[in-house]
Amino acid sequence: MNKINHTLLTDFYELTMSNGYFEAGIANDIAYFDLFFRKIPDGGGFAIMAGLEQAIDYLESLEFEEEDIDFLRTKDGFSEDFLAFLKDFKFTCDVWAVPEGTPIFPSEPILSVRGPLIQAQFVETMLLLIINHQSLIATKANRIVRAAKGRGVMEFGTRRAHGTAAAVLGARAAYIGGCIGTACTVCERDYGINALGTMAHSWVQVFPTEYEAFLAYAKSYPNNCTLLVDTYNVLKSGIPNAIKIFKEMKPANMGIRIDSGDIAYLTKQARKMLDEAGLKDCKIVISNSLDEWLIRDILLQGAPIDSFGVGERLITASSDPVFGGVYKLSGIETGGVFTPKMKISENVEKITNPGHKNVYRLIDKNSGRAIADVITLADEAEPSGDDYTIFNPSYTWKRKKLSNFTAHGLRKRIFENGVLVYKPPKVDEIRAYCLAQVDTLWDELLRFENPQEYYVDLSQELWGLRSKLIEQHSEEV
Amino acid sequence: MNKINHTLLTDFYELTMSNGYFEAGIANDIAYFDLFFRKIPDGGGFAIMAGLEQAIDYLESLEFEEEDIDFLRTKDGFSEDFLAFLKDFKFTCDVWAVPEGTPIFPSEPILSVRGPLIQAQFVETMLLLIINHQSLIATKANRIVRAAKGRGVMEFGTRRAHGTAAAVLGARAAYIGGCIGTACTVCERDYGINALGTMAHSWVQVFPTEYEAFLAYAKSYPNNCTLLVDTYNVLKSGIPNAIKIFKEMKPANMGIRIDSGDIAYLTKQARKMLDEAGLKDCKIVISNSLDEWLIRDILLQGAPIDSFGVGERLITASSDPVFGGVYKLSGIETGGVFTPKMKISENVEKITNPGHKNVYRLIDKNSGRAIADVITLADEAEPSGDDYTIFNPSYTWKRKKLSNFTAHGLRKRIFENGVLVYKPPKVDEIRAYCLAQVDTLWDELLRFENPQEYYVDLSQELWGLRSKLIEQHSEEV
Repeated sequence: MNKINHTLLTDFYELTMSNGYFEAGIANDIAYFDLFFRKIPDGGGFAIMAGLEQAIDYLESLEFEEEDIDFLRTKDGFSEDFLAFLKDFKFTCDVWAVPEGTPIFPSEPILSVRGPLIQAQFVETMLLLIINHQSLIATKANRIVRAAKGRGVMEFGTRRAHGTAAAVLGARAAYIGGCIGTACTVCERDYGINALGTMAHSWVQVFPTEYEAFLAYAKSYPNNCTLLVDTYNVLKSGIPNAIKIFKEMKPANMGIRIDSGDIAYLTKQARKMLDEAGLKDCKIVISNSLDEWLIRDILLQGAPIDSFGVGERLITASSDPVFGGVYKLSGIETGGVFTPKMKISENVEKITNPGHKNVYRLIDKNSGRAIADVITLADEAEPSGDDYTIFNPSYTWKRKKLSNFTAHGLRKRIFENGVLVYKPPKVDEIRAYCLAQVDTLWDELLRFENPQEYYVDLSQELWGLRSKLIEQHSEEV
Repeated sequence: MNKINHTLLTDFYELTMSNGYFEAGIANDIAYFDLFFRKIPDGGGFAIMAGLEQAIDYLESLEFEEEDIDFLRTKDGFSEDFLAFLKDFKFTCDVWAVPEGTPIFPSEPILSVRGPLIQAQFVETMLLLIINHQSLIATKANRIVRAAKGRGVMEFGTRRAHGTAAAVLGARAAYIGGCIGTACTVCERDYGINALGTMAHSWVQVFPTEYEAFLAYAKSYPNNCTLLVDTYNVLKSGIPNAIKIFKEMKPANMGIRIDSGDIAYLTKQARKMLDEAGLKDCKIVISNSLDEWLIRDILLQGAPIDSFGVGERLITASSDPVFGGVYKLSGIETGGVFTPKMKISENVEKITNPGHKNVYRLIDKNSGRAIADVITLADEAEPSGDDYTIFNPSYTWKRKKLSNFTAHGLRKRIFENGVLVYKPPKVDEIRAYCLAQVDTLWDELLRFENPQEYYVDLSQELWGLRSKLIEQHSEEV
């Protein structure tokens, strides 16, 4: 795969700030940053973490090349000392992150960076870009896959993706969320994700007749013959021709694809015609601007569909195409003294959590279900005991006593002083892990409309720190 | 800039079809394909063509490398003869396209390819991906720029872009649509688009006080000092501290940025405070989940804003993030005989236009405004005369006689037998051309809500061919 240096793919302000920190003599103060998001796309009950492997690639390949330095010299305000510093720039921070495929919730630090201020700040833009994009698509894909209720969902959106990386890594994220394959060929070469596809309408049109088009295809692909039957007329022409071909050529695997029209009606008729022709093994594949709501609707009408090809609405997450991850300062260490930092806002949801933190998922021992996540300060003991109280950090009277649970640290150590100490799993493992993790969530979280809000609570200690800082701030203003 | 080989970034069916055409012995029949779109995003009055330069790069670098061939060998169904053929694959087609920055309308062939079937088919996925993505963003950017009514709009969406290419080429497309710059640094290095940005909230937070943060920034950037004033409290703290700094440090250019809160209220107060402090030159920059509707609204309330930073809603075109360009067969030449092809559909909008075509824009000689586009067959004379009738291809009784116009061919020849014969303009020229072209459109097309539908009509000859083929088809079914 082509490796690209993305060092200058960053908001320009990361560079003006870096230079400014350098000139102010605080470039090597130790900063703590958290990456988290505030809102689950589509009003869903959870999101899916994705993109960590690419974030790791990015951090490992960070390097200012000669052409980058030369370019920065043309911009106003960067000192030669700073540019010389960039020449030797190397990522030496610590990183913790939630593994890919994990269900994640608002306000949880799904990735944290600790290290020299100038470095920890600089990586903001690309970490957000990578995690935001892939988590968006993995989350959307998982919704669509759940709507399909066990039927295969294939990612078919390459042509409507927002650029090349969105096509390839979007397909990767869709696979993590539960898709069974993609139309994007290079995804199989580079990520081992099964690439699928048979024919477009143009195939059928270039031959003098639909029958001849199907025949030529069956000759070339006797093992796997899926025919697109809606170029002329599904029921009067497409299916009858497909049946003829299947009977004459007897392909090892056969299927028909319908890409237009009333899917529920057409698939029922198609199934009947195929069955009556003795072709009960013939699969029916559907593709036509599908999403989780359309799939749910046509399955509710009993459409006999074996698998779905989902394109533009998945690869762009079209119903809610922004994953709003942010990257916020949580503390700074100057001369060995740690000062927790938080962003205060009149908007309660925009208040951040101060200090270096940990996240635990509490799993009910009886059911195996996730009952709550708890964010603690990093040096606290993990939640335990048979009488553990959690409470809503905004509405603290909302309390709940928990017992009979185990606490699982959600995050892994990824980098230690810039050295990668984590082995990213293969994408097949991530996908399996994701589907298993989603199975630990209560059904109430899986609804598309008005899902239950999952508990993400703060430890007493973290809540105390937060309250103290808010109070200090009020006094200052 | 890193050049990447995107040859395998394609829907897998392009490869199964290519192999099939090869085996059926029709790989070198001459095929004609049109790229066009059906629906203007956001219900707008027009779209903006973008991405041609990247489409050219793609076509010029098409090449199956050893690793691609080795990979394809692992997939079922590709013959060794076909794989050997791919080794020598070279793009030798003709291409016509509408230049970037041109206002475009549904059903117009904005790009056409003529050449050996196997090649003309193969390039479908990437041509669509590139043109769809950049046209989407250029179109959205132009809407936002129009809403800003002459104030600068900066593209600030890198962190919410759908992957790296969406960030970089999205910024390029946004610039074409009229933005004045981008936060994305690498865009300036690679495309000469001004990269802008000053500080994040974290900058303000790492210093002990806001005042110290502003002071450090003003010391580092005496020429261009824009201060982010909403970290603690805009009116009680941010603006007063900014005023102090501006008076003490006297930067050559100064500005404040507000990223939260009620923009209309805060900017009015801020303007008053700055003016009273004698800082009439201080600019006010706004950024906070903006789009064309929000910008229009706050300007209607008289908010004194000098420029806008627009992020996620621009870079993802969030209100309508799919540009539905398609690529359809319009004819095939076998043994020297040309057969026009069209896709028939029960859905009138999905019927395509057959044959090799041309597109003209008719400009009213008096007003200089665009009055209609006319699609003709390629060998027809251009529309002319003082009594030229255009008519709606779906509702043919809707007719209009035109006089006193000049007809301008909308498309340029890009490739001739695979040789590039077009010199892509620089992005600055494209942007200027785009803004000038939008000025040729009637105001009725510029409305966000219910704009007038622009006339895109067919020549009598093309309409006749289309009708004949539809009739033939009805008889066959």
